[in-house]
Amino acid sequence: MAVTIKDIAIKSGVSLATVSRVLNDSGYVKDETREKIVQAIEELNYTPSAIARSLSRKQTNVIGVIVPDINNPHFGELIKGITKVADNANLNMILCDTDESGEKEIKALKLLQEQRIEGIIISPTSNENDSSREYLDTLKNLGIPIVLLDGDVKNSNFSGVFLDNIKGSYEGVNVLINEGHKKIAIITGRINSKPAKDRLEGYKKALQKNKIEVKDEYIFYGDYREDSGYELTKKIIKLKDKPTAIFLSNNMMTLGCIRALNEAKIKVPRDISIMAFDKLQILMSLGMNISFISAPTLEMGKSAMKLLLESLKSKNKAQVKRIVLSPELLLNGSEKLV
Amino acid sequence: MAVTIKDIAIKSGVSLATVSRVLNDSGYVKDETREKIVQAIEELNYTPSAIARSLSRKQTNVIGVIVPDINNPHFGELIKGITKVADNANLNMILCDTDESGEKEIKALKLLQEQRIEGIIISPTSNENDSSREYLDTLKNLGIPIVLLDGDVKNSNFSGVFLDNIKGSYEGVNVLINEGHKKIAIITGRINSKPAKDRLEGYKKALQKNKIEVKDEYIFYGDYREDSGYELTKKIIKLKDKPTAIFLSNNMMTLGCIRALNEAKIKVPRDISIMAFDKLQILMSLGMNISFISAPTLEMGKSAMKLLLESLKSKNKAQVKRIVLSPELLLNGSEKLV
Repeated sequence: MAVTIKDIAIKSGVSLATVSRVLNDSGYVKDETREKIVQAIEELNYTPSAIARSLSRKQTNVIGVIVPDINNPHFGELIKGITKVADNANLNMILCDTDESGEKEIKALKLLQEQRIEGIIISPTSNENDSSREYLDTLKNLGIPIVLLDGDVKNSNFSGVFLDNIKGSYEGVNVLINEGHKKIAIITGRINSKPAKDRLEGYKKALQKNKIEVKDEYIFYGDYREDSGYELTKKIIKLKDKPTAIFLSNNMMTLGCIRALNEAKIKVPRDISIMAFDKLQILMSLGMNISFISAPTLEMGKSAMKLLLESLKSKNKAQVKRIVLSPELLLNGSEKLV
Repeated sequence: MAVTIKDIAIKSGVSLATVSRVLNDSGYVKDETREKIVQAIEELNYTPSAIARSLSRKQTNVIGVIVPDINNPHFGELIKGITKVADNANLNMILCDTDESGEKEIKALKLLQEQRIEGIIISPTSNENDSSREYLDTLKNLGIPIVLLDGDVKNSNFSGVFLDNIKGSYEGVNVLINEGHKKIAIITGRINSKPAKDRLEGYKKALQKNKIEVKDEYIFYGDYREDSGYELTKKIIKLKDKPTAIFLSNNMMTLGCIRALNEAKIKVPRDISIMAFDKLQILMSLGMNISFISAPTLEMGKSAMKLLLESLKSKNKAQVKRIVLSPELLLNGSEKLV
């Protein structure tokens, strides 16, 4: 139950009118009484947003969007999709960047909960929170509609829009194999993250189906950031049995990979082929020979916003809907070996 | 004066306690009375955030940040700088993206004003708002501290952190001239934007100082977006008296420029030299021969957040401070002609 002004009045032993005077900073209240009321407010953890929420007629028309890395163009595109639909529905948006930190993600959720917003679209960080009880409780106790985007949360049952990561990986790696590659290294995300696991699974499935041994020394775990792609690629190119192709789990790590290859004067695709999740428009504009497994980001963002609109209209009583979209292969010059 | 619960009680002709019951959705209130109160709330434009603000003991520890294009890594870097200082001060941040639209910028300001935040850092759009009375009034009437970042607002007197655009342009174009270039085209921003004007002024100053004629057919106005860089570069390479160098006013237009050059199979720096404002890490990682006039973005973000902290601590009574930082030249292979 939400804390009300009445609770504060009872707790501090004063009249409702006195509490109102303090809350509104209007009229005279003895310092001592004010102290008591402020203390009660703090102890009861009363936030005026409770008022806002109960004021059902007074909609704020604001939604919150939480992403792990606003500097990543992948999330920029998702946000663009959300914005297109939100604009049409005359909804405003506030953004929170969690900087790939699970702790900041929980903070952001609590922050938005206190703000006067109507619903949240969240793209979870690479899920270090996945096993956290606090995280799940925070999500479940928000009291406003929530839609997941591009990342699932274990043991939750929220509506959301997801990418078929296993299929994407499987098809991408299959292309490399059909081109003659047998030594394919993978840089995936954090070992405990669902998308990272799925992308690794698709990779393994493609190898196994083609009767190619899955080698542990070809499997690397990054953190979706450019630097980890850079460091891990430096390790890969020092391997004794050098891979002829690298399969990467996201765009930022691909940037790091290319930086490392460039420094080592290894040419793509002459010396090594690259296949990566999340397209990078800039590399395509430059005509670089890199193939992408591209998520329909604009479509995903739009769908997520549409799901949220459904929830808002039905006052959070909409059926849970989980939409899974397939990625598209943009074959752009991984070198044929056969 | 902020509207209080008392005003609503008077307006709707009911007791304070009844208004409280409606606001808190607790206890019985006749439908007819509820109607009257809701109407009064709407007519008086009462927002519960007025309560929040008057609750001076109850700080929200949230600041708002407004940028014109979160997909632009330049703003990503500014935000990173802000975040570093905000994290240390235990402040949370909500972001608004105005999508380079003056109208959306005003909306974002009003939106943040209604949210429970303590101050705003704003990087104005390329200032189509500059001459708008509504814009200036909105900024001045926010009632919370405001700090400008990387873009000034005409007729305002806010604290802020800015880049010395004239100096940056002047020095950049000077480098091109010293390398032997005499035919230098410029793609600057919107004609009515202050940074675009300053960057054009620096360009002209450098040419004039070196006794090179300023030619109108070499001056192009973009909108800081990739597509305008692309379209204008296509025009530039069709000029009869083809320039040997292009000077660009921001990073996104540079991406478009490179795309157009790539399509036309024009090589940088062999066929044409590029000098651009705002570095693009990716092009540097790829070892591309493009020179940048680079803003100290991280430093600028940090300084802006420090200015805002000063304002917050002094309850908006801090002295107006305007910090102007110099850009750095990253000379990365504009081709020497002499």
